[in-house]
Amino acid sequence: MYQYQDDSFMLHTDLYQINMAKTYYEQGIHERQTIFDLYFRKMPFDNGYAVFAGLTHIIDYLEKLRFSDSDIEYLSTLGYSDDFLNYLKTVRFTGTVRSMAEGETVFNNEPLVQVEATLAEAQLIETALLNIVNFQTLIATKANRIRQLVPKDSLMEFGTRRAHEFDAALWGARAAVIGGFDGTSNVRAAKLFGLTPSGTHAHAMVQAYGNDYDAFTAYAETHSDCVFLVDTFDTLKSGIPTAIKVANEFKGRINFKGIRIDSGDIAYLTKQARKMLDDAGYTDVQIIVSNDLDEVTILSLMSQGAKVDGWGIGTKLITAYDNPALGAVYKLAAIQDESGVWQNRMKLSGNVEKTTTPGKKKVYRIINKETGMSEGDYITLHDEVIDTDKPLLMFHPVHTVKRKLVQSFEPVELLHDVFVDGKLVYESPTVDEMQENCRRSLDTIWEETKRFLNPQEYPVDLSTDLWNMKTDFIEELSNKTLE
Amino acid sequence: MYQYQDDSFMLHTDLYQINMAKTYYEQGIHERQTIFDLYFRKMPFDNGYAVFAGLTHIIDYLEKLRFSDSDIEYLSTLGYSDDFLNYLKTVRFTGTVRSMAEGETVFNNEPLVQVEATLAEAQLIETALLNIVNFQTLIATKANRIRQLVPKDSLMEFGTRRAHEFDAALWGARAAVIGGFDGTSNVRAAKLFGLTPSGTHAHAMVQAYGNDYDAFTAYAETHSDCVFLVDTFDTLKSGIPTAIKVANEFKGRINFKGIRIDSGDIAYLTKQARKMLDDAGYTDVQIIVSNDLDEVTILSLMSQGAKVDGWGIGTKLITAYDNPALGAVYKLAAIQDESGVWQNRMKLSGNVEKTTTPGKKKVYRIINKETGMSEGDYITLHDEVIDTDKPLLMFHPVHTVKRKLVQSFEPVELLHDVFVDGKLVYESPTVDEMQENCRRSLDTIWEETKRFLNPQEYPVDLSTDLWNMKTDFIEELSNKTLE
Repeated sequence: MYQYQDDSFMLHTDLYQINMAKTYYEQGIHERQTIFDLYFRKMPFDNGYAVFAGLTHIIDYLEKLRFSDSDIEYLSTLGYSDDFLNYLKTVRFTGTVRSMAEGETVFNNEPLVQVEATLAEAQLIETALLNIVNFQTLIATKANRIRQLVPKDSLMEFGTRRAHEFDAALWGARAAVIGGFDGTSNVRAAKLFGLTPSGTHAHAMVQAYGNDYDAFTAYAETHSDCVFLVDTFDTLKSGIPTAIKVANEFKGRINFKGIRIDSGDIAYLTKQARKMLDDAGYTDVQIIVSNDLDEVTILSLMSQGAKVDGWGIGTKLITAYDNPALGAVYKLAAIQDESGVWQNRMKLSGNVEKTTTPGKKKVYRIINKETGMSEGDYITLHDEVIDTDKPLLMFHPVHTVKRKLVQSFEPVELLHDVFVDGKLVYESPTVDEMQENCRRSLDTIWEETKRFLNPQEYPVDLSTDLWNMKTDFIEELSNKTLE
Repeated sequence: MYQYQDDSFMLHTDLYQINMAKTYYEQGIHERQTIFDLYFRKMPFDNGYAVFAGLTHIIDYLEKLRFSDSDIEYLSTLGYSDDFLNYLKTVRFTGTVRSMAEGETVFNNEPLVQVEATLAEAQLIETALLNIVNFQTLIATKANRIRQLVPKDSLMEFGTRRAHEFDAALWGARAAVIGGFDGTSNVRAAKLFGLTPSGTHAHAMVQAYGNDYDAFTAYAETHSDCVFLVDTFDTLKSGIPTAIKVANEFKGRINFKGIRIDSGDIAYLTKQARKMLDDAGYTDVQIIVSNDLDEVTILSLMSQGAKVDGWGIGTKLITAYDNPALGAVYKLAAIQDESGVWQNRMKLSGNVEKTTTPGKKKVYRIINKETGMSEGDYITLHDEVIDTDKPLLMFHPVHTVKRKLVQSFEPVELLHDVFVDGKLVYESPTVDEMQENCRRSLDTIWEETKRFLNPQEYPVDLSTDLWNMKTDFIEELSNKTLE
C-alpha cells in the first residue's frame, strides 16, 4: 500500500523534469530566468472556441510547492547526489504567472498561461500545469458546447462514476459549472467549490422497496422536494402513473418537482409523460432525462420534439468522450543568457503548425467599439504599445493575405497577473462569477464561431512586429540546418 | 478557494446516495443487509478480455470512510435533520467485500466486486467504487492490449500531462504497470507504488542550450545513464550524429542507453537511426519512440519494419482515447426482509442485456486439467457445491444451445475476501506481483480471445441452478407488468 506521512505533489511531474533540473543545477544555469507559454494547437471537439479552466488548481498547487522529506528520501534512492537534493529542498515557486481567467473564451495558438521563472522551477511545474489545464479546459469547453444547445434548460453534471478517478470527478464537476452547467451530483465538489448539488434517488431504491409505489411513498415521506425516477419497471404503465398517484396523496406536503427518465425511447416517453403530467394538473412538473447523452443525442431529441426540462449529463461530458484529450503544450519562448540578456527561443518543426512563437508576449482581445463584438485576438511583443488612435492592421499569421483594418477598437488584455515573484496577487472570483464571465465573454464572439458544427475560424493574429521577429527567426534557424 | 481543515472522501458520492440513505434511515430499513454486484456489460475496446484494477484504492477509501465535521456541517446547510446527521456521523464501513485480484483477467457480466453491507453503507460507497474500478480497469486493459503487441519491448507510460487531472495520472500509471508496462514517467506514482520511473530530458533542454551538442554534453556531464532526445532540430542531420559524437567523447564515462525520437516519420527515421548507431558500433543502444502512439500505430510501425526497442505511450493510453469510459454498474442482487430472510432482487429492462442476475453468487474459472487452459467462467449461487467428479455442463446464458460438457476440471474461485464485517483481511500483493498474476492469468486464456481485433467471445456462464432461478424471476416480474 502507498503510505507516506508527508507526501506532496512536487513529484507529480515527469522524471525528465528532475533530470533536467539536475543538469541545470550542476551546470549552474538553473536560476536563469525563462518564459514558457502554455497553449494548445488544435480546437477540441472541432469547436470554434474553448473555455479556459484550471487556474484555481494551479494556484493551490504552486502555493504548496515544495519537496517533502519523503520526496527527497525517495529521490535519494534513485541515486541523486546530496548536493542536488539539498538544492531541491530549497525549491519554492518564486516566479511570475500570468493567466487567462477561468471562464474566458480562449483559442488555439495563444498563450493561456505564461510562466516567467527560473529554468529549474519552470520545468519542474510543467507537467502538473499541463495536466490541470488540459483536463479542466476540455470539460469546461464540452459543457459549454452543451449549454449552447439548451440555453434555458436545467443542466446537471452526473458523471462521477465514469470520471477518470476522484480528481477528474471533482474538478470536472467544477469545470462543467464554469462552462454553464447548473449543478452537479458530486457532493464533495458542491461542498468544496460552492456548487449546487443535485439528485434524488436511484433504481436501487425502487428495487429495495420492490415496487414504484412503496419506493415513491417512502421518498415522499422523508423528503419535501421530490423528483421520482420512473423507469425501473415500466415508465408509462407504472412509473409515471405511480408518481402522479403519490404526488396526489402527498399534495400540500411535498413539492413534486419532477420525474426522471433514464432509459428507453426518450423522445416518445417524454412526450407521453408531458401529456400524462399535464392531464393530471402537473403542468409545472419538470421532465428530466439522462442516459449517455451528448450534443448529438440532445439535438436529435430536440428535433423530435422531446419534452425535456432538464438534462443529466454523465459519461460523455466528464470523459470528453469524443475527444478525451486537449493537447496543450508548454514551450520555452525566451531565456536569459549568462549576462542576464533575454534571448528568444523557438522550436522549429517539420510540422509547420508545431513551430512555436518566440519571445515574451501579451494577448489582447480586440473589441470593436461600434459592434461591441470581438474582431479577434492579437498577440504582441510584451513591450509593444497599441495605438488605439490609428486603425489596427490584423492579418492571418499563415495566410497573410487574409487581412483587415480595424478602425475603432479597444484592446483588452487577457492575461492577468496571478503570481508576481512568487507572491499570489490574484483574487479568484467564485465559480458562479466565472460562469457569468464565460457568458459575457461569449457575448462578444460572433454566432458563426459558436455554432455546434463547422464553426468559422476565429482570428488569432500576431502583431506586425511579432510576426516579423518570428519570420526572421525561422529564416535564421532554417539556414542553420542547411549548413 | 476550497479550504477545509478536515475534508474527507465520504462526500465523493452522488447526492442521491445521501438522499436515499435519509429515506432508508427514517424508514428504519438502513441496516438491512444487502448484496450489490459491481460489473460491466460491454468489453472495452471490443477487446476479448479486461484486466481488473482498482482494489488498492477501494481498500484505502473504505478504511478511511467516515463523515468529517465539515462534511456534516455542509450537509446541515442543505437542510438535513440533526437526527439523520447524527446517524451519518456513526457511519463506518462495516460490511464484507469480495473482489477480483488486481491483474486478474476478467470479463463482462460477471461480478468483479461484491459488496455485502447494510443498505445505507452499500449505497453511500457505490459512486466511489464505480469511479475507481471504471477508470483503473480501463487503463490496465488498454495497457495490456499494447503489451500483447510487443511482448518483449520496453513500454513506458508517459501520459501525465494529458491525464484527466492528478489522480488519473497517478492511478493510471499504476494500472498501466499492472497491465504489463515496465515503468512510468510519473515520479510520484513511482514513489507511492514502487514503480520504475523513466525519463531523461525534453526538447526544452535542447532549446535552453540552443543546440544539440551543448545540450547532450551538459546532460552527459551530469548523468551516467543517457538517452538523448534527437528530434529537436533535425533528427538525421543533427540529433543522431550529435548523440553519437557526444557518446564517443564520453566513452567509458556514460552509459549511452538510447536515443528517443518524438516526431517525424518514425518508421523511416528509426531504420536510419539503427543503421547510424550500428555503424558507429552502438548496436546495443536502444531506439525509443513516442508521439501519440496507440495499438494501431504500433502495428503499422511494426509492419513497416520500424526499428524500435522501447515505446513511450502517453495520451492514447492514459485517456483510453478510443474508449474513454468503462460502463461498470453496481446493482442490487439481494436484500434481507424485516425478518432477516434474504430476498433476491432483479432489475428487468427493456434492453435484455441490462437485466441483472439476482442473488448472492460465486464466480469460478473452470480450468481444464488436461490443457491447463480455461474453459470459461462459471457463476453459481453462493451455496452451490461444484462436484468435480462429474462432468460440468456449461452453456451460454442467452443462446443456451451453445453448450459443452467439461470432463476434467478445476474450479478456481475468483472473488477473494477483502473486508469481512468491516475488517480488512486481504493482503495486497505488490504491483510487480499483480503484473505477474496478470501474465499467469492470461496464460490460461486461448489466443483467440486475446487477439487485437475481433476476438473470440469468452464464455461467462451461469450454473444450471442460477440460470433456472433467474429465468423464473424474469417470468414472475414480466407477469407482474402484464397485470
